[in-house]
Amino acid sequence: MRTDGRANNELRKVEMERGFIKTAEGSVYITVGDTRVICTATVEDRVPPFLRNSGKGWITAEYSMLPRATQQRTIRESSRGKVSGRTMEIQRLIGRALRSVVDLSAIGERTIWIDCDVIQADGGTRTASITGAYVALVDALAPLVRNGVLSTMPVKDFLAATSVGIVGNQVLLDLCYKEDSSATVDMNIVMTGLGKYVEIQGTGEESPFSGEQLTHLLELARKGTMELIGMQKEVLGMDADLVGGAPADESSSTASL
Amino acid sequence: MRTDGRANNELRKVEMERGFIKTAEGSVYITVGDTRVICTATVEDRVPPFLRNSGKGWITAEYSMLPRATQQRTIRESSRGKVSGRTMEIQRLIGRALRSVVDLSAIGERTIWIDCDVIQADGGTRTASITGAYVALVDALAPLVRNGVLSTMPVKDFLAATSVGIVGNQVLLDLCYKEDSSATVDMNIVMTGLGKYVEIQGTGEESPFSGEQLTHLLELARKGTMELIGMQKEVLGMDADLVGGAPADESSSTASL
Amino acid sequence: MRTDGRANNELRKVEMERGFIKTAEGSVYITVGDTRVICTATVEDRVPPFLRNSGKGWITAEYSMLPRATQQRTIRESSRGKVSGRTMEIQRLIGRALRSVVDLSAIGERTIWIDCDVIQADGGTRTASITGAYVALVDALAPLVRNGVLSTMPVKDFLAATSVGIVGNQVLLDLCYKEDSSATVDMNIVMTGLGKYVEIQGTGEESPFSGEQLTHLLELARKGTMELIGMQKEVLGMDADLVGGAPADESSSTASL
Amino acid sequence: MRTDGRANNELRKVEMERGFIKTAEGSVYITVGDTRVICTATVEDRVPPFLRNSGKGWITAEYSMLPRATQQRTIRESSRGKVSGRTMEIQRLIGRALRSVVDLSAIGERTIWIDCDVIQADGGTRTASITGAYVALVDALAPLVRNGVLSTMPVKDFLAATSVGIVGNQVLLDLCYKEDSSATVDMNIVMTGLGKYVEIQGTGEESPFSGEQLTHLLELARKGTMELIGMQKEVLGMDADLVGGAPADESSSTASL
Amino acid sequence: MRTDGRANNELRKVEMERGFIKTAEGSVYITVGDTRVICTATVEDRVPPFLRNSGKGWITAEYSMLPRATQQRTIRESSRGKVSGRTMEIQRLIGRALRSVVDLSAIGERTIWIDCDVIQADGGTRTASITGAYVALVDALAPLVRNGVLSTMPVKDFLAATSVGIVGNQVLLDLCYKEDSSATVDMNIVMTGLGKYVEIQGTGEESPFSGEQLTHLLELARKGTMELIGMQKEVLGMDADLVGGAPADESSSTASL
Amino acid sequence: MRTDGRANNELRKVEMERGFIKTAEGSVYITVGDTRVICTATVEDRVPPFLRNSGKGWITAEYSMLPRATQQRTIRESSRGKVSGRTMEIQRLIGRALRSVVDLSAIGERTIWIDCDVIQADGGTRTASITGAYVALVDALAPLVRNGVLSTMPVKDFLAATSVGIVGNQVLLDLCYKEDSSATVDMNIVMTGLGKYVEIQGTGEESPFSGEQLTHLLELARKGTMELIGMQKEVLGMDADLVGGAPADESSSTASL
Repeated sequence: MRTDGRANNELRKVEMERGFIKTAEGSVYITVGDTRVICTATVEDRVPPFLRNSGKGWITAEYSMLPRATQQRTIRESSRGKVSGRTMEIQRLIGRALRSVVDLSAIGERTIWIDCDVIQADGGTRTASITGAYVALVDALAPLVRNGVLSTMPVKDFLAATSVGIVGNQVLLDLCYKEDSSATVDMNIVMTGLGKYVEIQGTGEESPFSGEQLTHLLELARKGTMELIGMQKEVLGMDADLVGGAPADESSSTASL
Repeated sequence: MRTDGRANNELRKVEMERGFIKTAEGSVYITVGDTRVICTATVEDRVPPFLRNSGKGWITAEYSMLPRATQQRTIRESSRGKVSGRTMEIQRLIGRALRSVVDLSAIGERTIWIDCDVIQADGGTRTASITGAYVALVDALAPLVRNGVLSTMPVKDFLAATSVGIVGNQVLLDLCYKEDSSATVDMNIVMTGLGKYVEIQGTGEESPFSGEQLTHLLELARKGTMELIGMQKEVLGMDADLVGGAPADESSSTASL
Repeated sequence: MRTDGRANNELRKVEMERGFIKTAEGSVYITVGDTRVICTATVEDRVPPFLRNSGKGWITAEYSMLPRATQQRTIRESSRGKVSGRTMEIQRLIGRALRSVVDLSAIGERTIWIDCDVIQADGGTRTASITGAYVALVDALAPLVRNGVLSTMPVKDFLAATSVGIVGNQVLLDLCYKEDSSATVDMNIVMTGLGKYVEIQGTGEESPFSGEQLTHLLELARKGTMELIGMQKEVLGMDADLVGGAPADESSSTASL
Repeated sequence: MRTDGRANNELRKVEMERGFIKTAEGSVYITVGDTRVICTATVEDRVPPFLRNSGKGWITAEYSMLPRATQQRTIRESSRGKVSGRTMEIQRLIGRALRSVVDLSAIGERTIWIDCDVIQADGGTRTASITGAYVALVDALAPLVRNGVLSTMPVKDFLAATSVGIVGNQVLLDLCYKEDSSATVDMNIVMTGLGKYVEIQGTGEESPFSGEQLTHLLELARKGTMELIGMQKEVLGMDADLVGGAPADESSSTASL
Repeated sequence: MRTDGRANNELRKVEMERGFIKTAEGSVYITVGDTRVICTATVEDRVPPFLRNSGKGWITAEYSMLPRATQQRTIRESSRGKVSGRTMEIQRLIGRALRSVVDLSAIGERTIWIDCDVIQADGGTRTASITGAYVALVDALAPLVRNGVLSTMPVKDFLAATSVGIVGNQVLLDLCYKEDSSATVDMNIVMTGLGKYVEIQGTGEESPFSGEQLTHLLELARKGTMELIGMQKEVLGMDADLVGGAPADESSSTASL
Repeated sequence: MRTDGRANNELRKVEMERGFIKTAEGSVYITVGDTRVICTATVEDRVPPFLRNSGKGWITAEYSMLPRATQQRTIRESSRGKVSGRTMEIQRLIGRALRSVVDLSAIGERTIWIDCDVIQADGGTRTASITGAYVALVDALAPLVRNGVLSTMPVKDFLAATSVGIVGNQVLLDLCYKEDSSATVDMNIVMTGLGKYVEIQGTGEESPFSGEQLTHLLELARKGTMELIGMQKEVLGMDADLVGGAPADESSSTASL
């Protein structure tokens, strides 16, 4: 039995609230069990130097935790004067994952800044960030499509992430912090709405794992991400129909079918 | 007429939610109009070097804004690798203000860390932080008094803060961002429940001000802080009765009378 | 009785030497009792990015203490790799105060850098810095007015600063370090030649203070700053007549009357 | 056809030279095609704070590239004053991978520092670093086992890493820089001598990949790492027999069989 | 003819004022022509980690220039967040030079901090710093000898420094900034009272120099340092007699004879 | 007798391998006894701001040691976040030395980056760096001369460096680490092919030295550098003939005769 009574292949309770921050172009407040993250998307009308005059846009992400998101207060990275390796890894992952489903040429020379700020942490903060940030991204882009600033929705497919792991000999979906701490294998998976892999990051630091175990882990992860994508579609409502890169005035898109 | 139709001597709508972050000893989510701040209080069982073996405790504060708390995205201080002068000024103010109403000897050799994270900013973030942080502080200490860890409540009086300023020729209470931007005089006041001044920070960079104008500003600030203290008492409920340093088992305290 | 035998409402001995540093456009060596500060003003022919093409200039200040300005050697901020919160607060204050009496449009697209370096500290270093920096500023600008580089003197009024505080139950003017350390209320006031407030920064961290005490403190501060402004006029001699924004060829200016 | 004429499932030419740096306890100079890395292992007789008095040891890794390891000179991280996210990710990966095959209790309270310095880069620097660092680690520990400082070899299994990827529609083993730049899917795999996964890091930023493709990639990676482990055994010679955690005086160990 | 009419082998006008900073144990204000430096010496009752429990002391130096010591304002190193290579070189030189004439065992486990702050710069700031810092060092130690805290004067010999260089084809002593800028060879020499070399730092970046030129440069430098040491003896008065390591109650010392 | 049996005036065994790093324009692997350094030269088609539009080029150097170049592992400067004073001194020296024999106008607006990375350290790393970097510099420039990109070789003379010192009462050439540690006088000399001094850096921190000792030290240094220059010519082969600034199509150059 899991600490919160869930089945091994069961996600925690997930909620997403769009438009959470008035000052941001796109924003989502996502809760996955006791993990709570504020995700915002900012549209900036310029690109990093390496893309200037390329006609292409960029998506970059930053991730942070409030000091008391955790049981023990964590020192602020601004006070320490540098960003930790863990933070860098996570924000690089978030940016890479979102870029994989966006047609950067269709954004034009714009940068989308994704900010994921964890206000309470109970495991799975990076995967919750990706899942929430995806919705914030659509939240920011949909009005540009509807207003005609963009001629088509640059987001080609849905995208969500979850964690899987091996605790004891159980293969579990969506680990909370306590499970994560005692896991011998820990894996984060990012998948698209079409069921393709975008990222697989698995580590067996405590105990290397076999091919068979890997297969089982991947199956669970697929189940979880597909459920999360279902929720994203619901939250996005009509804006979900824009996903898939179809021109704004067409009624269907590949991915949402 | 003010942009939101308020009278010149009227506060914006204020709400405070205690226990907002599960992982923190004390936490308050305060909204003052569109300014929204998460305040937490952490109790740590040690003190900075200069207080070791002194028998006294310490209160220190950190303040930050999420990048999209503002209309234009602000670069993270962790990315810039240093904390701005503005942030330092504000966090020093918050710490100093809270220490003024706490008997540091009564905390014992503990540090209370106050974290104020602004998730949406519309003016008055430092004063909202102080008002909210005060409640988070009581939120963190009250259980220690009730459990007998502390023999008396170290908090001697109530404390709240607000801003006043001169816009056009109007003296206004509780400026929103738009008003603040066009103010010629800007003042932040921190007051105690007994109506004494803890901090007065007034600046007339745009236009020096007269003694008469100062008198008017201070009157408005007193009105505003007293109303905020009334709300704090309501939110704190029974815990408000602990304030004033009386032993936990006594029914009355100086300040709350 | 005060430690140095002064009356409660008496300033320490103040001296200001203009032209102290040959390499700088303006420079003043100010001593206030045992507090000694070198203030320089540098005129740079460009402005920070936010003012480019605005036709307006800027004034910014930096403040530092030599390591042995204090009884205990202080670690250099360059060695620590960062500027302390206290330093930032002070330099922001100095810049803000000077800008309040300068017509930035009349400087043109120039930046005036004010550097205040404390070589010996005995309390009141920030107020001595402001009082001295004001004279250094005029020292740097007067030749530009006389040479016709500037058509009018951009400095609109005089400006000086002093500290007041409550020690024991005494309200004192111009606290030395020893008095400052035992003060329960500590206040810095910046005033113009016309007797208006530019900055009021009062803190009762040790003991909140009443409205009546505030009135007494402000009176003393007014007396002190007016005396300091008298000395500034004397030191500036004929250049004092330029202050007030009148064209260089007119014989009178508002503020100096 | 690949740029260097290799078959899709063929490694580049690999060489490892033990004892390359006289001053280090363990050192290996590994070349994988044109990728050349100096790996050293340092034994330090103390552990990080979180392990003090735990009886356990630690392995940590640092990774760097000489400025001209690359076609374009890269700015030194020491000059920039901070380590990049890429570097952090890689050194965290190297440390985690090596710890997975080491019994940290059997090291005692010692830290093994692994340094991987790339002197020439042609793709696959992180996997070459892991493969070489593993040998440097054994190089440093074997004498301690033979001298009786350690009672058993703390290294439980062999460990090597390689990259696989999809370029065009080809699934390739051990990508050189040119292939890596045009890969749509890029994956690094760390495996043990017993054929278990320690790390799987796959990313399809350019193009998400299917389950079928994943299976193919994993097969190639297994072939490559097993060949690399064969070479490690050859280079380690008699020291290879120590691997597996068997006491030094026993002739066999699990992993090397 | 030199710009200021000096002979080629003539020093600029030198003055040294002891006890310049009240708060410091030793302090000297040295002027060499228009170069002006405040040198202080601080006695701290502890040593850096590498000397703990060695019974030996240490001397370390820090050097800085006020922003407007120079014709063009220099950015503060505290604002840039790091100390420049030039500053590091100079402060390492000052510390090394002073240590060469001090018996570190005779100081006991104390650190002498030397601070040299240039308030106006006209060439030769590092050599003026050494010459002045030497006097500040004696200024700080003499009372300890006279009070019996130290049983003998730890300073074994006098020490001064000057610059020499080749400008045009002239070999010049004590270069001012203008001469230094056009020198093809630039050399700083530190010598003891007994006429021995402590440091020779010569560079012919603009034009390599011959052995004959070197001989000429060294002769001039010897003349200059000997004159400076004469002035030091005069300024130190009776304290000069302590130099040489003789016990405080003996009337003669090797070096001062 | 010296630790390795050399005569007092004998260099250690020196080897230089050109073209060591494929990715760099010029590169040399130099070994001087157990000191081993990788030197690369990078040609960049732009100059630092102070040389823009001057028609002149620049040479700048960076120096670093791998953590395990030394017996005790040294913390990476990238991890510490700043470059040490020692490193800065050395890299400034290397740059200055190389610039002294190069006609910067003849490079055009290009920057040559010299990188010296010590992979094993046994004393004399800075002088080995200069000697090796000189060859890497010619290695990078010779093709530009032969291809006609540069009309003449900008390198005017040969350049090498070595150390000398006093150990016990012996004057020694080319000190290894053990000798260096016990030297009372330590000197680094950089000389040109024509036997002129470029840099003399001598320090007698442990024991000031006489003029006679200086003469002896300089003689040994001259002998050593001349031998090193002989080896450079051999390694450079035909490219040595380009040195001296003669047009590429002439058969002789001043310095190589």
